Amino acid sequence: MFREGLLVVVSGPSGTGKGTVLSCIRQKENRIKFSVSATTREPRSGEVDGVNYFFKTTEEFEAMIENGELIEWVKYCDNYYGTPKKYVADTIKSGYDCLLEIEVEGALNIKKIYPDCVSIFILPPSFEELRRRIESRGTEKPEVIEKRMEKALKEMNYVDRYDYVVVNDDIEKAVDSIRYILASEKLKFSRNRDILKTIGIS
Amino acid sequence: MFREGLLVVVSGPSGTGKGTVLSCIRQKENRIKFSVSATTREPRSGEVDGVNYFFKTTEEFEAMIENGELIEWVKYCDNYYGTPKKYVADTIKSGYDCLLEIEVEGALNIKKIYPDCVSIFILPPSFEELRRRIESRGTEKPEVIEKRMEKALKEMNYVDRYDYVVVNDDIEKAVDSIRYILASEKLKFSRNRDILKTIGIS
Repeated sequence: MFREGLLVVVSGPSGTGKGTVLSCIRQKENRIKFSVSATTREPRSGEVDGVNYFFKTTEEFEAMIENGELIEWVKYCDNYYGTPKKYVADTIKSGYDCLLEIEVEGALNIKKIYPDCVSIFILPPSFEELRRRIESRGTEKPEVIEKRMEKALKEMNYVDRYDYVVVNDDIEKAVDSIRYILASEKLKFSRNRDILKTIGIS
Repeated sequence: MFREGLLVVVSGPSGTGKGTVLSCIRQKENRIKFSVSATTREPRSGEVDGVNYFFKTTEEFEAMIENGELIEWVKYCDNYYGTPKKYVADTIKSGYDCLLEIEVEGALNIKKIYPDCVSIFILPPSFEELRRRIESRGTEKPEVIEKRMEKALKEMNYVDRYDYVVVNDDIEKAVDSIRYILASEKLKFSRNRDILKTIGIS
C-alpha cells in the first residue's frame, strides 16, 4: 500500500478551535509531523531552532526565496515567514504525514504546487459559538472582536476550495475525523497505482 | 454535515476474503444496510423474502426491467438477478449507507448511473495467499482451481476503476479501512455544499 506520507493542509479561522484540535493531534499522532516554518523574526525565549521555527537572517531568507527553496512565503510586520520545501519533502518521503497549518491564501497556493495534497477546513459548529469563542479569547475591545468576526466569516467563504470540511463541535470527534481522512486518503487507488505489482499479482 | 447515506459498491474476486469482511461489517455496523437483490430463483430453505432476496416471478421481474425499477440486472442459469432502485434510494434517504456487493461489470454500470457512489475493491495480500484461499475452499479439482485463479486475476485488472483499494491481510484492519473510507467520504466538501448555511454562517 501507499508508503509515502501525505501533505496535509489545514486551515480554519480564529474561533474554530483549530489550535486545540491540532495540538491534540500533535500529542497523539506519531505518524504526523508538523511543518516547521522559516522566519527572520527573533527567537522568543524558549523557542528552539528547527523545532518552533528555522531562524534565518534576512539575507539567508532572501537567498531561499531566490533559490526556490520555499513553497510559499509572506512578509509580515517587516519579518519574513515561509514554508521550506525540503522539510516537507523529507518528511513525506520518510513516510510521515506532513501537516501544514496555513491561512487560506497560502493553502490555495500550495494546492497549485502540490495538487496531491489533502486540504481540510475546520469550521465552528455555529455562528453563536464562533462569536463566543472569539469573545472568550480575552480582553479585546468590541471593535477588535467585530474585526475578528468579520475576518473569520470572510475566510470561511473559501471552504469550497478545500477537499474536506470538519465541523469542530467536539475536539475528540474532530481529531478522529482528521485521522479518518488521512487513513482513507491512503487507500485511494490513485495513490496506489502499482498495487497489483506490490502484492505480486501483475 | 452530510446526512444522507452513501451508496457503497464493494467488489473483490473469490479468494480475497471479501465475504468474511462484509459479514463482519454486517454484524458490527448498524449504520450500514446491505442491498437486497431481486431474483426469480426459488427461495432456499430458511431464506426470507425481503431479507435474503426479494423473490419475484419471471413476469414480475420482467415488469421491473420494463419499468426501469432495477439499477442493474443479469440473467444467470435461467434466473434473473437484479438490484432494485427503490431499496437503495430509500436506504440512502433514511440516512443509512447502502452497501452493494457486486462483481466488476455490475459495479461499473452502477458508477455510470450513480457517479456519487463510493467504490471499493478488496484485494488479497499476495498471489500465494489468493491461491491458498481458493484451494482451501474445499474439494475442487485442479482444473476448477485454475479456472477460479484465472477469473480472480482477470477481475483484479479492473481495480483501477475503483475509488479505493483495501488489501485484506487482516480482517479487522480491512473492516476498519472500510469504516474510515465511509466516515471520510461524508466529510468531503463536495457532499457538504451547504455546510455554511447548515451551521448558520451564510
